[in-house]
Amino acid sequence: MNDAAVKPKVIAFDVFGTVVDWHGSVSREVAAMNLGVDADEFALAWRAGYKPAMRAVMDQGEWVILDDLHRRILDQVLVDFKLDSLIEADREHLNLVWHRLDPWPDSVEGLTRLKTKFIVCSLSNGNIGLLTEMAKNAGLPWDCILSAENFNKYKPHPDTYLGVVRTFASAPGEVMLAAAHHGDLEAARNCGLETAYIERPFEYGHKQPKNIAPWSSNTLHATSIVHLAELLDC
Amino acid sequence: MNDAAVKPKVIAFDVFGTVVDWHGSVSREVAAMNLGVDADEFALAWRAGYKPAMRAVMDQGEWVILDDLHRRILDQVLVDFKLDSLIEADREHLNLVWHRLDPWPDSVEGLTRLKTKFIVCSLSNGNIGLLTEMAKNAGLPWDCILSAENFNKYKPHPDTYLGVVRTFASAPGEVMLAAAHHGDLEAARNCGLETAYIERPFEYGHKQPKNIAPWSSNTLHATSIVHLAELLDC
Repeated sequence: MNDAAVKPKVIAFDVFGTVVDWHGSVSREVAAMNLGVDADEFALAWRAGYKPAMRAVMDQGEWVILDDLHRRILDQVLVDFKLDSLIEADREHLNLVWHRLDPWPDSVEGLTRLKTKFIVCSLSNGNIGLLTEMAKNAGLPWDCILSAENFNKYKPHPDTYLGVVRTFASAPGEVMLAAAHHGDLEAARNCGLETAYIERPFEYGHKQPKNIAPWSSNTLHATSIVHLAELLDC
Repeated sequence: MNDAAVKPKVIAFDVFGTVVDWHGSVSREVAAMNLGVDADEFALAWRAGYKPAMRAVMDQGEWVILDDLHRRILDQVLVDFKLDSLIEADREHLNLVWHRLDPWPDSVEGLTRLKTKFIVCSLSNGNIGLLTEMAKNAGLPWDCILSAENFNKYKPHPDTYLGVVRTFASAPGEVMLAAAHHGDLEAARNCGLETAYIERPFEYGHKQPKNIAPWSSNTLHATSIVHLAELLDC
Protein backbone atom coordinates (compact mmCIF):
# COMPACT_ATOMS: atom_id res chain seq x y z
CA MET A 1 0.00 0.00 0.00
CA ASN A 2 1.48 3.37 -1.01
CA ASP A 3 -0.23 5.68 1.41
CA ALA A 4 0.87 9.29 1.35
CA ALA A 5 -0.98 9.81 4.64
CA VAL A 6 1.74 7.85 6.46
CA LYS A 7 3.80 10.38 8.42
CA PRO A 8 6.59 8.88 10.45
CA LYS A 9 8.60 10.99 12.90
CA VAL A 10 11.84 9.18 12.11
CA ILE A 11 13.10 7.41 8.97
CA ALA A 12 15.97 5.01 9.65
CA PHE A 13 17.94 3.79 6.65
CA ASP A 14 19.73 0.58 6.04
CA VAL A 15 22.99 1.70 4.41
CA PHE A 16 24.96 -1.03 2.55
CA GLY A 17 23.11 -1.58 -0.72
CA THR A 18 20.30 0.83 0.15
CA VAL A 19 22.15 4.17 0.37
CA VAL A 20 25.58 3.22 -0.97
CA ASP A 21 26.70 0.92 -3.78
CA TRP A 22 29.03 -1.51 -1.99
CA HIS A 23 29.44 -3.84 -4.98
CA GLY A 24 30.40 -1.15 -7.47
CA SER A 25 32.67 0.68 -5.03
CA VAL A 26 34.52 -2.39 -3.76
CA SER A 27 34.96 -3.90 -7.21
CA ARG A 28 36.22 -0.60 -8.65
CA GLU A 29 38.88 -0.30 -5.92
CA VAL A 30 39.91 -3.93 -6.29
CA ALA A 31 40.15 -3.56 -10.07
CA ALA A 32 42.31 -0.44 -9.65
CA MET A 33 44.76 -2.43 -7.50
CA ASN A 34 45.60 -4.64 -10.51
CA LEU A 35 45.72 -7.80 -8.43
CA GLY A 36 44.93 -10.05 -11.36
CA VAL A 37 41.63 -11.25 -9.93
CA ASP A 38 38.04 -10.87 -11.05
CA ALA A 39 37.10 -7.76 -9.06
CA ASP A 40 33.38 -8.50 -9.35
CA GLU A 41 33.84 -12.00 -7.90
CA PHE A 42 36.18 -10.66 -5.21
CA ALA A 43 33.60 -8.11 -4.03
CA LEU A 44 30.87 -10.75 -3.96
CA ALA A 45 33.06 -13.20 -2.02
CA TRP A 46 33.97 -10.55 0.56
CA ARG A 47 30.35 -9.58 1.07
CA ALA A 48 29.27 -13.24 1.24
CA GLY A 49 31.22 -13.60 4.48
CA TYR A 50 29.25 -10.80 6.11
CA LYS A 51 26.12 -12.54 7.36
CA PRO A 52 27.85 -15.66 8.72
CA ALA A 53 30.39 -13.45 10.54
CA MET A 54 27.65 -11.41 12.20
CA ARG A 55 25.71 -14.50 13.14
CA ALA A 56 28.84 -15.91 14.79
CA VAL A 57 29.24 -12.71 16.84
CA MET A 58 25.61 -12.89 17.94
CA ASP A 59 26.00 -16.57 18.87
CA GLN A 60 29.21 -15.99 20.80
CA GLY A 61 27.85 -12.93 22.61
CA GLU A 62 31.06 -10.89 22.54
CA TRP A 63 30.75 -7.71 20.51
CA VAL A 64 33.01 -7.28 17.49
CA ILE A 65 32.65 -4.22 15.24
CA LEU A 66 32.13 -4.62 11.51
CA ASP A 67 35.56 -3.18 10.60
CA ASP A 68 37.11 -6.13 12.41
CA LEU A 69 34.74 -8.64 10.82
CA HIS A 70 35.49 -7.21 7.39
CA ARG A 71 39.19 -7.71 8.05
CA ARG A 72 38.79 -11.32 9.18
CA ILE A 73 36.74 -12.09 6.07
CA LEU A 74 39.18 -10.24 3.83
CA ASP A 75 42.12 -12.28 5.11
CA GLN A 76 40.26 -15.47 4.17
CA VAL A 77 39.16 -14.14 0.77
CA LEU A 78 42.77 -13.23 0.01
CA VAL A 79 43.73 -16.84 0.70
CA ASP A 80 40.88 -18.10 -1.49
CA PHE A 81 41.96 -15.81 -4.35
CA LYS A 82 45.62 -16.80 -3.88
CA LEU A 83 46.61 -13.30 -2.83
CA ASP A 84 48.19 -14.28 0.51
CA SER A 85 51.21 -12.19 -0.33
CA LEU A 86 49.33 -8.88 -0.09
CA ILE A 87 51.21 -6.78 2.45
CA GLU A 88 49.72 -5.51 5.70
CA ALA A 89 49.52 -1.84 4.66
CA ASP A 90 47.55 -2.79 1.53
CA ARG A 91 45.22 -5.03 3.54
CA GLU A 92 44.55 -2.22 6.02
CA HIS A 93 43.90 0.25 3.24
CA LEU A 94 41.67 -2.14 1.31
CA ASN A 95 39.70 -3.02 4.44
CA LEU A 96 38.72 0.62 4.81
CA VAL A 97 37.11 0.65 1.34
CA TRP A 98 33.86 0.19 3.29
CA HIS A 99 34.42 3.73 4.66
CA ARG A 100 34.70 5.02 1.08
CA LEU A 101 31.62 3.52 -0.57
CA ASP A 102 29.93 5.71 -3.17
CA PRO A 103 26.28 6.65 -2.74
CA TRP A 104 23.68 5.72 -5.33
CA PRO A 105 23.03 8.75 -7.56
CA ASP A 106 19.75 9.64 -5.82
CA SER A 107 20.85 9.14 -2.20
CA VAL A 108 22.14 12.58 -1.23
CA GLU A 109 19.21 14.42 -2.83
CA GLY A 110 16.69 12.00 -1.38
CA LEU A 111 18.04 12.18 2.19
CA THR A 112 18.36 15.96 1.97
CA ARG A 113 14.70 16.28 0.95
CA LEU A 114 13.50 13.81 3.60
CA LYS A 115 15.32 15.58 6.42
CA THR A 116 13.30 18.75 5.80
CA LYS A 117 10.32 16.93 7.35
CA PHE A 118 11.64 13.94 9.29
CA ILE A 119 14.51 12.88 11.51
CA VAL A 120 16.68 10.91 9.09
CA CYS A 121 19.19 8.49 10.58
CA SER A 122 21.15 5.41 9.62
CA LEU A 123 20.46 2.02 11.11
CA SER A 124 23.32 -0.03 9.77
CA ASN A 125 25.44 -2.94 10.86
CA GLY A 126 28.46 -0.79 10.02
CA ASN A 127 30.27 0.60 13.06
CA ILE A 128 29.92 4.27 14.00
CA GLY A 129 33.41 5.24 12.81
CA LEU A 130 32.84 3.55 9.45
CA LEU A 131 29.47 5.26 8.98
CA THR A 132 30.85 8.67 10.00
CA GLU A 133 33.74 8.53 7.55
CA MET A 134 31.42 7.20 4.83
CA ALA A 135 28.99 10.06 5.42
CA LYS A 136 31.82 12.59 5.24
CA ASN A 137 33.20 11.06 2.03
CA ALA A 138 29.83 10.67 0.34
CA GLY A 139 28.10 13.80 1.67
CA LEU A 140 25.31 11.86 3.38
CA PRO A 141 23.40 14.42 5.47
CA TRP A 142 22.33 12.23 8.41
CA ASP A 143 20.64 13.94 11.33
CA CYS A 144 22.11 11.17 13.43
CA ILE A 145 24.22 8.08 12.85
CA LEU A 146 22.81 5.01 14.55
CA SER A 147 24.54 1.68 14.24
CA ALA A 148 24.35 -1.87 15.50
CA GLU A 149 27.25 -0.65 17.67
CA ASN A 150 24.82 1.55 19.62
CA PHE A 151 22.88 -1.51 20.70
CA ASN A 152 25.58 -4.20 20.70
CA LYS A 153 23.32 -6.27 18.46
CA TYR A 154 23.41 -6.82 14.72
CA LYS A 155 20.29 -6.56 12.59
CA PRO A 156 17.91 -8.31 12.33
CA HIS A 157 17.92 -8.48 16.15
CA PRO A 158 14.82 -6.64 17.49
CA ASP A 159 16.97 -4.53 19.87
CA THR A 160 18.27 -2.60 16.85
CA TYR A 161 14.86 -1.54 15.52
CA LEU A 162 13.44 -0.95 18.99
CA GLY A 163 16.65 0.92 19.83
CA VAL A 164 15.78 3.56 17.24
CA VAL A 165 12.27 3.77 18.69
CA ARG A 166 13.66 4.27 22.20
CA THR A 167 16.37 6.73 21.12
CA PHE A 168 13.71 9.08 19.79
CA ALA A 169 11.15 8.40 22.55
CA SER A 170 8.72 7.29 19.87
CA ALA A 171 6.05 4.69 19.35
CA PRO A 172 7.18 1.90 16.98
CA GLY A 173 4.66 3.11 14.37
CA GLU A 174 6.33 6.54 14.32
CA VAL A 175 9.55 5.02 12.96
CA MET A 176 9.95 3.83 9.39
CA LEU A 177 12.79 1.59 8.22
CA ALA A 178 13.87 2.13 4.61
CA ALA A 179 15.87 -0.71 3.08
CA ALA A 180 16.55 -2.59 -0.13
CA HIS A 181 16.19 -5.91 1.71
CA HIS A 182 12.87 -7.55 2.46
CA GLY A 183 14.29 -9.56 5.37
CA ASP A 184 15.47 -6.42 7.18
CA LEU A 185 12.08 -4.79 6.61
CA GLU A 186 10.23 -7.88 7.80
CA ALA A 187 12.19 -7.90 11.07
CA ALA A 188 11.41 -4.20 11.57
CA ARG A 189 7.74 -4.78 10.80
CA ASN A 190 7.64 -7.53 13.42
CA CYS A 191 8.71 -4.85 15.93
CA GLY A 192 5.85 -2.58 14.87
CA LEU A 193 7.79 -0.22 12.59
CA GLU A 194 6.54 1.12 9.26
CA THR A 195 8.60 -0.04 6.28
CA ALA A 196 9.69 1.34 2.91
CA TYR A 197 11.32 -0.87 0.29
CA ILE A 198 13.86 0.84 -1.97
CA GLU A 199 14.56 -0.80 -5.34
CA ARG A 200 18.27 -1.43 -5.92
CA PRO A 201 18.23 -3.93 -8.76
CA PHE A 202 22.00 -3.85 -9.26
CA GLU A 203 23.11 -4.14 -5.63
CA TYR A 204 25.09 -7.28 -6.60
CA GLY A 205 26.30 -5.84 -9.89
CA HIS A 206 24.84 -5.87 -13.37
CA LYS A 207 25.55 -9.58 -13.86
CA GLN A 208 23.23 -10.53 -10.99
CA PRO A 209 20.13 -8.33 -11.09
CA LYS A 210 18.02 -8.67 -7.96
CA ASN A 211 14.33 -9.44 -7.75
CA ILE A 212 12.78 -6.10 -6.79
CA ALA A 213 9.16 -7.15 -6.83
CA PRO A 214 7.03 -5.35 -4.23
CA TRP A 215 5.81 -7.09 -1.08
CA SER A 216 2.39 -5.86 -0.11
CA SER A 217 3.36 -6.06 3.55
CA ASN A 218 5.57 -2.95 3.20
CA THR A 219 4.03 0.44 3.91
CA LEU A 220 5.74 2.02 0.89
CA HIS A 221 7.59 0.81 -2.22
CA ALA A 222 9.94 3.27 -3.88
CA THR A 223 12.17 3.11 -6.95
CA SER A 224 14.76 5.34 -5.23
CA ILE A 225 15.25 7.52 -2.15
CA VAL A 226 14.13 10.54 -4.18
CA HIS A 227 10.96 8.61 -5.01
CA LEU A 228 10.49 7.91 -1.29
CA ALA A 229 10.78 11.66 -0.65
CA GLU A 230 8.10 12.23 -3.29
CA LEU A 231 5.82 9.62 -1.74
CA LEU A 232 6.20 11.44 1.58
CA ASP A 233 5.54 14.88 0.04
CA CYS A 234 9.09 16.18 0.52
CA MET B 1 50.33 27.00 24.40
CA ASN B 2 48.53 27.96 21.19
CA ASP B 3 50.21 25.70 18.68
CA ALA B 4 48.86 25.85 15.13
CA ALA B 5 50.90 22.73 14.33
CA VAL B 6 48.47 20.62 16.39
CA LYS B 7 46.39 18.63 13.92
CA PRO B 8 43.87 16.33 15.50
CA LYS B 9 41.88 13.83 13.45
CA VAL B 10 38.72 14.31 15.52
CA ILE B 11 37.39 17.28 17.49
CA ALA B 12 34.75 16.31 20.05
CA PHE B 13 32.67 19.11 21.54
CA ASP B 14 31.08 19.47 24.88
CA VAL B 15 27.64 20.90 24.06
CA PHE B 16 25.76 22.52 26.99
CA GLY B 17 27.40 25.89 27.54
CA THR B 18 30.10 25.33 24.92
CA VAL B 19 28.04 25.09 21.71
CA VAL B 20 24.60 26.15 22.95
CA ASP B 21 23.44 28.78 25.44
CA TRP B 22 21.41 26.77 27.95
CA HIS B 23 20.98 29.62 30.42
CA GLY B 24 19.67 32.13 27.89
CA SER B 25 17.44 29.59 26.13
CA VAL B 26 15.89 28.10 29.27
CA SER B 27 15.33 31.45 30.95
CA ARG B 28 13.73 32.91 27.80
CA GLU B 29 11.27 30.01 27.57
CA VAL B 30 10.48 30.17 31.28
CA ALA B 31 9.94 33.94 31.09
CA ALA B 32 7.60 33.48 28.10
CA MET B 33 5.46 31.09 30.16
CA ASN B 34 4.56 33.94 32.57
CA LEU B 35 4.82 31.76 35.63
CA GLY B 36 5.55 34.66 37.95
CA VAL B 37 9.03 33.42 38.86
CA ASP B 38 12.51 34.82 38.25
CA ALA B 39 13.37 33.00 35.01
CA ASP B 40 17.09 33.52 35.50
CA GLU B 41 16.99 31.91 38.95
CA PHE B 42 14.75 29.12 37.68
CA ALA B 43 17.22 28.21 34.90
CA LEU B 44 20.13 28.24 37.36
CA ALA B 45 18.25 26.06 39.87
CA TRP B 46 17.34 23.51 37.19
CA ARG B 47 20.91 23.31 35.94
CA ALA B 48 22.26 23.07 39.51
CA GLY B 49 20.55 19.69 39.87
CA TYR B 50 22.43 18.31 36.86
CA LYS B 51 25.75 17.22 38.35
CA PRO B 52 24.34 15.61 41.52
CA ALA B 53 21.77 13.71 39.42
CA MET B 54 24.47 12.32 37.11
CA ARG B 55 26.68 11.40 40.02
CA ALA B 56 23.77 9.50 41.58
CA VAL B 57 23.29 7.55 38.32
CA MET B 58 26.98 6.70 38.21
CA ASP B 59 26.93 5.61 41.87
CA GLN B 60 23.83 3.48 41.42
CA GLY B 61 25.08 1.89 38.21
CA GLU B 62 21.73 1.81 36.40
CA TRP B 63 21.70 3.97 33.29
CA VAL B 64 19.20 6.84 33.14
CA ILE B 65 19.20 9.23 30.17
CA LEU B 66 19.48 12.96 30.69
CA ASP B 67 15.91 13.67 29.52
CA ASP B 68 14.70 11.65 32.49
CA LEU B 69 17.13 13.29 34.91
CA HIS B 70 16.04 16.73 33.67
CA ARG B 71 12.45 15.78 34.38
CA ARG B 72 13.17 14.57 37.93
CA ILE B 73 15.06 17.78 38.67
CA LEU B 74 12.34 19.91 37.07
CA ASP B 75 9.66 18.36 39.27
CA GLN B 76 11.67 19.30 42.38
CA VAL B 77 12.44 22.82 41.10
CA LEU B 78 8.72 23.34 40.48
CA VAL B 79 8.07 22.46 44.13
CA ASP B 80 10.84 24.78 45.27
CA PHE B 81 9.43 27.64 43.18
CA LYS B 82 5.86 26.90 44.40
CA LEU B 83 4.71 25.91 40.93
CA ASP B 84 3.45 22.42 41.87
CA SER B 85 0.21 23.14 40.05
CA LEU B 86 1.86 23.14 36.60
CA ILE B 87 -0.01 20.55 34.53
CA GLU B 88 1.63 17.47 33.03
CA ALA B 89 1.50 18.65 29.41
CA ASP B 90 3.30 21.89 30.34
CA ARG B 91 5.92 19.97 32.34
CA GLU B 92 6.55 17.65 29.40
CA HIS B 93 6.86 20.55 26.99
CA LEU B 94 9.12 22.55 29.30
CA ASN B 95 11.35 19.54 29.92
CA LEU B 96 12.10 19.37 26.20
CA VAL B 97 13.46 22.93 26.21
CA TRP B 98 16.86 21.21 26.37
CA HIS B 99 16.13 19.94 22.82
CA ARG B 100 15.53 23.52 21.69
CA LEU B 101 18.58 25.35 23.05
CA ASP B 102 19.94 28.12 20.85
CA PRO B 103 23.55 27.99 19.65
CA TRP B 104 26.01 30.74 20.52
CA PRO B 105 26.28 33.12 17.54
CA ASP B 106 29.62 31.65 16.36
CA SER B 107 28.80 27.93 16.79
CA VAL B 108 27.34 27.00 13.39
CA GLU B 109 30.00 28.87 11.43
CA GLY B 110 32.81 27.52 13.61
CA LEU B 111 31.69 23.89 13.38
CA THR B 112 31.08 24.22 9.63
CA ARG B 113 34.62 25.49 9.11
CA LEU B 114 36.19 22.86 11.38
CA LYS B 115 34.43 19.98 9.61
CA THR B 116 36.18 20.87 6.35
CA LYS B 117 39.37 19.45 7.90
CA PHE B 118 38.41 17.31 10.89
CA ILE B 119 35.78 14.86 12.05
CA VAL B 120 33.59 17.03 14.25
CA CYS B 121 31.36 15.29 16.77
CA SER B 122 29.57 15.99 20.00
CA LEU B 123 30.60 14.41 23.28
CA SER B 124 27.81 15.47 25.57
CA ASN B 125 25.99 14.13 28.57
CA GLY B 126 22.77 14.84 26.67
CA ASN B 127 21.08 11.74 25.30
CA ILE B 128 21.22 10.97 21.58
CA GLY B 129 17.61 11.93 20.89
CA LEU B 130 18.06 15.25 22.69
CA LEU B 131 21.27 16.03 20.77
CA THR B 132 19.72 15.05 17.43
CA GLU B 133 16.68 17.28 17.86
CA MET B 134 18.90 20.10 19.16
CA ALA B 135 21.16 19.79 16.10
CA LYS B 136 18.15 19.87 13.79
CA ASN B 137 16.66 22.92 15.53
CA ALA B 138 19.93 24.82 15.78
CA GLY B 139 21.52 23.73 12.48
CA LEU B 140 24.56 22.16 14.15
CA PRO B 141 26.41 20.29 11.37
CA TRP B 142 27.84 17.36 13.36
CA ASP B 143 29.61 14.63 11.41
CA CYS B 144 28.48 12.33 14.19
CA ILE B 145 26.55 12.65 17.42
CA LEU B 146 28.28 10.93 20.32
CA SER B 147 26.78 11.00 23.77
CA ALA B 148 27.32 9.63 27.24
CA GLU B 149 24.49 7.31 26.15
CA ASN B 150 26.89 5.60 23.69
CA PHE B 151 29.10 4.55 26.57
CA ASN B 152 26.60 4.28 29.43
CA LYS B 153 28.83 6.58 31.45
CA TYR B 154 28.54 10.28 32.15
CA LYS B 155 31.48 12.63 31.74
CA PRO B 156 33.96 12.99 33.35
CA HIS B 157 34.23 9.18 33.34
CA PRO B 158 37.27 8.14 31.25
CA ASP B 159 35.14 5.70 29.21
CA THR B 160 33.51 8.67 27.50
CA TYR B 161 36.73 10.30 26.26
CA LEU B 162 38.33 6.96 25.43
CA GLY B 163 35.07 5.95 23.77
CA VAL B 164 35.57 8.69 21.18
CA VAL B 165 39.14 7.51 20.66
CA ARG B 166 37.97 3.92 20.12
CA THR B 167 35.03 4.91 17.90
CA PHE B 168 37.42 6.50 15.43
CA ALA B 169 40.19 3.90 15.81
CA SER B 170 42.52 6.71 16.86
CA ALA B 171 45.32 7.34 19.29
CA PRO B 172 44.24 9.51 22.25
CA GLY B 173 46.46 12.32 20.98
CA GLU B 174 44.54 12.38 17.68
CA VAL B 175 41.37 13.45 19.47
CA MET B 176 40.79 16.96 20.85
CA LEU B 177 38.06 17.83 23.31
CA ALA B 178 36.71 21.36 23.00
CA ALA B 179 34.81 22.65 26.02
CA ALA B 180 34.05 25.73 28.07
CA HIS B 181 34.77 23.80 31.28
CA HIS B 182 38.24 23.24 32.65
CA GLY B 183 37.16 20.16 34.64
CA ASP B 184 35.89 18.39 31.52
CA LEU B 185 39.11 19.25 29.69
CA GLU B 186 41.25 18.08 32.59
CA ALA B 187 39.54 14.69 32.62
CA ALA B 188 40.08 14.38 28.85
CA ARG B 189 43.72 15.37 29.21
CA ASN B 190 44.19 12.67 31.83
CA CYS B 191 43.10 10.21 29.14
CA GLY B 192 45.72 11.53 26.72
CA LEU B 193 43.47 13.77 24.60
CA GLU B 194 44.39 17.21 23.32
CA THR B 195 42.22 20.00 24.73
CA ALA B 196 40.81 23.33 23.58
CA TYR B 197 39.17 25.75 25.98
CA ILE B 198 36.36 27.90 24.56
CA GLU B 199 35.55 31.12 26.39
CA ARG B 200 31.86 31.42 27.28
CA PRO B 201 31.88 34.17 29.88
CA PHE B 202 28.08 34.41 30.08
CA GLU B 203 27.25 30.70 30.31
CA TYR B 204 25.45 31.42 33.61
CA GLY B 205 23.92 34.65 32.38
CA HIS B 206 25.12 38.24 32.46
CA LYS B 207 24.62 38.53 36.21
CA GLN B 208 27.20 35.80 36.90
CA PRO B 209 30.14 36.20 34.51
CA LYS B 210 32.48 33.22 34.57
CA ASN B 211 36.24 33.25 35.07
CA ILE B 212 37.59 32.53 31.59
CA ALA B 213 41.28 32.77 32.39
CA PRO B 214 43.46 30.39 30.34
CA TRP B 215 44.98 27.28 31.87
CA SER B 216 48.39 26.59 30.39
CA SER B 217 47.66 22.86 30.48
CA ASN B 218 45.23 23.19 27.57
CA THR B 219 46.57 22.72 24.06
CA LEU B 220 44.55 25.66 22.72
CA HIS B 221 42.58 28.58 24.18
CA ALA B 222 39.96 30.17 21.94
CA THR B 223 37.55 33.05 22.39
CA SER B 224 34.92 31.26 20.27
CA ILE B 225 34.49 28.22 18.01
CA VAL B 226 35.24 30.45 15.01
CA HIS B 227 38.48 31.42 16.74
CA LEU B 228 39.27 27.73 17.28
CA ALA B 229 38.75 27.21 13.53
CA GLU B 230 41.20 30.05 12.86
CA LEU B 231 43.76 28.57 15.25
CA LEU B 232 43.48 25.29 13.34
CA ASP B 233 43.77 26.98 9.92
CA CYS B 234 40.18 26.32 8.85
